[in-house]
Amino acid sequence: MTTTTRETRIEADAEVPLIRITREFDAPPAKVFRAHTDPELVAQWMGPRSTENRIDSWDCRTGGSWRYVSLHEGQEYGFHGCFHEVRPDELIVQTSTFEGMPDGVALEKLVLEDLGDGRTRLTATSLCDSFADRDAMLSSGMDVGVREGYERLDALLAS
Amino acid sequence: MTTTTRETRIEADAEVPLIRITREFDAPPAKVFRAHTDPELVAQWMGPRSTENRIDSWDCRTGGSWRYVSLHEGQEYGFHGCFHEVRPDELIVQTSTFEGMPDGVALEKLVLEDLGDGRTRLTATSLCDSFADRDAMLSSGMDVGVREGYERLDALLAS
Repeated sequence: MTTTTRETRIEADAEVPLIRITREFDAPPAKVFRAHTDPELVAQWMGPRSTENRIDSWDCRTGGSWRYVSLHEGQEYGFHGCFHEVRPDELIVQTSTFEGMPDGVALEKLVLEDLGDGRTRLTATSLCDSFADRDAMLSSGMDVGVREGYERLDALLAS
Repeated sequence: MTTTTRETRIEADAEVPLIRITREFDAPPAKVFRAHTDPELVAQWMGPRSTENRIDSWDCRTGGSWRYVSLHEGQEYGFHGCFHEVRPDELIVQTSTFEGMPDGVALEKLVLEDLGDGRTRLTATSLCDSFADRDAMLSSGMDVGVREGYERLDALLAS
């Protein structure tokens, strides 16, 4: 099976300290949604190729919480947050903290749009409370994790 | 007992779509913190004098969630969110949605500073993802609820 690698757009908003990521997938919203809510699937694609994920908790429902550890060259990088709202096949609103910067927190929204013909447009935003924090996140190398993660997600969705 | 009514400062941040509230209390941080985490206490002071609160859930711990209804002249106004992080006597980070505008969400931080002599400075911030949403929140009459709520909290802390 041939998989087309689609463009991942990562933009810094001009008005507010927000990062906006846009990506299309060759799978219907229900399948893309499940890849974000089922911890066994999430562990398989999230982040760059050089890392492995250990999901400690992933209670993806309105009012649930989550924590995972990204493993890279013997180091552990923890992330955690809570799920503010989960609407099946449409929307996930959650918080996120990288535990290496425990006082930082982002408000994240994932929106899935049905493009028809079994395709989905994903828009993921991360809102910080300062432009300095937003720009630090952008220059942290997160783009590699996002692009490679979505390529792994393409492969998972095609399997 | 005489209670001094202290100034409640409510400011719109110039750079980011954030509201910052600052208020001092004549009680130590542990007591102010408990008034935010114990649902029986929260129900007694939160919001304007003209309303009553019904707390449906208030699981104030890292990864917990909350919902309450504000009752005013026979109408119910629901609010809900999740607790991203709770550090005893210091910090509460949570999300918040007014259910009348179900697509809106704010990221809220409550910081308590010990001023000594049994006094505490509270700083509460609400971050929105647009200036329009932030300004709508500011002009909603929320200032009455904040000022009157903190006056009710003064009385509760003095009792």
